[in-house]
Amino acid sequence: MKILEAVLTPVAFADPPLLNVMGVHEPFALRSVVQLRCEDGVTGLGESYGDAAFLGEVRKVLPLLAGHDVFDLPGLHRTVARALAGTVLTDEHGLIGGFSLRKTLSSVFSLFEVACLDAQGHCLGRPVTDLLGGAARTSVEFSAYLFYKYGAHRDAGRTTGADHWGEIRTHEQLVASARHMADEYGFGSLKLKGGVFPPEQESEAVQALADAFPGAPVRLDPNAAWTSATAIEVARELDGVLEYLEDPTPGIEGMARVADAAPMPLATNMCLVGVDDIEPAFRARAVGVLLTDHHFWGGLRAAQALSTTCESFGVGLSMHSNSHLGISLAAMVHVAAATPHLTYACDTHWPWKTADVIAPGALEFRDGAVRVPQTPGLGVRIDPDALARAHENYVRCGLTKRDDTTYMRRYVPGFEPNIARW
Amino acid sequence: MKILEAVLTPVAFADPPLLNVMGVHEPFALRSVVQLRCEDGVTGLGESYGDAAFLGEVRKVLPLLAGHDVFDLPGLHRTVARALAGTVLTDEHGLIGGFSLRKTLSSVFSLFEVACLDAQGHCLGRPVTDLLGGAARTSVEFSAYLFYKYGAHRDAGRTTGADHWGEIRTHEQLVASARHMADEYGFGSLKLKGGVFPPEQESEAVQALADAFPGAPVRLDPNAAWTSATAIEVARELDGVLEYLEDPTPGIEGMARVADAAPMPLATNMCLVGVDDIEPAFRARAVGVLLTDHHFWGGLRAAQALSTTCESFGVGLSMHSNSHLGISLAAMVHVAAATPHLTYACDTHWPWKTADVIAPGALEFRDGAVRVPQTPGLGVRIDPDALARAHENYVRCGLTKRDDTTYMRRYVPGFEPNIARW
Repeated sequence: MKILEAVLTPVAFADPPLLNVMGVHEPFALRSVVQLRCEDGVTGLGESYGDAAFLGEVRKVLPLLAGHDVFDLPGLHRTVARALAGTVLTDEHGLIGGFSLRKTLSSVFSLFEVACLDAQGHCLGRPVTDLLGGAARTSVEFSAYLFYKYGAHRDAGRTTGADHWGEIRTHEQLVASARHMADEYGFGSLKLKGGVFPPEQESEAVQALADAFPGAPVRLDPNAAWTSATAIEVARELDGVLEYLEDPTPGIEGMARVADAAPMPLATNMCLVGVDDIEPAFRARAVGVLLTDHHFWGGLRAAQALSTTCESFGVGLSMHSNSHLGISLAAMVHVAAATPHLTYACDTHWPWKTADVIAPGALEFRDGAVRVPQTPGLGVRIDPDALARAHENYVRCGLTKRDDTTYMRRYVPGFEPNIARW
Repeated sequence: MKILEAVLTPVAFADPPLLNVMGVHEPFALRSVVQLRCEDGVTGLGESYGDAAFLGEVRKVLPLLAGHDVFDLPGLHRTVARALAGTVLTDEHGLIGGFSLRKTLSSVFSLFEVACLDAQGHCLGRPVTDLLGGAARTSVEFSAYLFYKYGAHRDAGRTTGADHWGEIRTHEQLVASARHMADEYGFGSLKLKGGVFPPEQESEAVQALADAFPGAPVRLDPNAAWTSATAIEVARELDGVLEYLEDPTPGIEGMARVADAAPMPLATNMCLVGVDDIEPAFRARAVGVLLTDHHFWGGLRAAQALSTTCESFGVGLSMHSNSHLGISLAAMVHVAAATPHLTYACDTHWPWKTADVIAPGALEFRDGAVRVPQTPGLGVRIDPDALARAHENYVRCGLTKRDDTTYMRRYVPGFEPNIARW
């Protein structure tokens, strides 16, 4: 089935002022939506990053897609490689590791791979899960992704965008936000985005969460805010409390040092972010849990293929999340469902999302899990009005890249990222 | 699409007296053919081992398949695991490594997985390659698989089964057989099954092949007939001559010792035969080329998934072969086509085959390669008369297991396998 036309729509949706190691989320999160219009009235959907540099690479591919067969994914990969011609993106987020030539290619390819798989599913009348080998589970568990946050945005001197979450800074506020999220979505496990406050405060916060939710697995992700010595100290403090500790310190060597001393496994989506990192990270025993992400690992098939590699080295597998919309959630759910060796509840920013581009109803959380859509393809469809609004947001908001650090300086003049700060 | 009935047909086909480390091929090679009769008149085909122990395990699964959805491969895996209930097969061949619980399960599952993928393809109107992510290549290269052999079989004191190949023992006979095979199939690379004669003779034979086919990659597989010291010596002698040296010596440790000193990569289908072997083999740097085989690695998807693991550790990937028929060749061609990181021409026993169970024409060798079938499923169909003849052969021949060693004693009284002999 051939692609007739590829339509790219940059979109933005209001995002709360969530804190992380790099600073604070700006008032809008950017994403890209691609619609592959194919023969027989089929449309394939994909979603990925929305910063200008990424969009620029995606735009190089768009004119080459007409006439391409949606089943020819290796050919699509060659086309994307040709279009990019050696460009290397940079990690503007500062949160998903360095970008190599290969990771750049994988990221751009992924957007189109997902859309092709969606189109394949519509063409064949089967859910994407079936194209990935069938569902190992009928629903996919996610964890409650907790953030510290400001109570409102600061837009050119004015305070705007107050939200129902309010400020989250103290243990009490954090536990209340977790309670709210668990009540609304039924999450059974909790993850705190750390790297914001000194380690002792975040360590106590994790303890407070564990006390408030007895038996619920708790994770902490300081996004490499700590030295390896600090990481070892905190890891020992939180023995028996943390299910896993995510990216406590930068780099494979540092992670290996911590992993050797930490009583719990270390997870990563920062030091092992591409095929070239696997051998050094695994040889060094730096990683106990790989957090895959189809957006930069090269699509659903490539993310799924990590399963064998991880299983054979006794490494767990779960899933990383950036701010995303419903197309990406559907993609995450399908690939997670088709991956037998998935050993932890996945991450999602879903509860922080304020709008979407898909028609509601296809993806619902129940008991912290999303049921795998049984309808063809990804099982979601565009809401044209919602997409138009999201695109209008993109145009109006004026943001073209994610820069949590510069924005943070409106709150904390002179702020620098907390990477390896403590 | 549901399975209505699973039909198992054990088959046998006349096999020449090919020599290997365990002895010599008996007059008939055994295989199993499964036909999954599904809704809508679809039939899915699978082929695998034909020894009685394997058939016994397969028969435990058959009654559980009716009503099973051919798209639910994870569910099929659970069903097979339940049916086997902890049985561990043994490596009767002596040529494909030890059998674990997991390898047993993977082997039995594989037969049905291939048949389900064939059925899926027919249901969806797509070749199996498309279900595996699309074709990275339109045809799959194979190498000429050369054997030493006797001129005829010995059946109860009589000499039978003389074939057009005649005896292959001297360098001249070997080169002549290679010439014959290359002329007929167009193979561009050569592989000698060794472990039959002393290493110096086989080393000279490889040199003779290299001289006779300048520029053609040559490989040697002594099936662990050598000590590691001998292996290192031969490897150094054949520097610049061998493309790779396959299983020169037994075990991961021995292979690692040889790999450290050998100028060419070491390949294996004996010391790394399941997911549990990957970490020890890769940590020890014992293997430079993994020869996968969907028959014991757990099906086409599992064999394909090894690609990422190998690529990330800089290990090459190609494909092992046992005596097989057309259903298995089709399966091998589809998975090889859908595996981008396939770094060497694959093995096949095809030229030694004297009959088949599929209708002719779907799989043709040209320039040493088989074009990937573009028709739905595996692209092959049963020839009912040929299947009946092959089953009659199975019944008449009276063989129920492969035992090259006992049979070899008709030629060489008191023969013992040559494993680590030299």
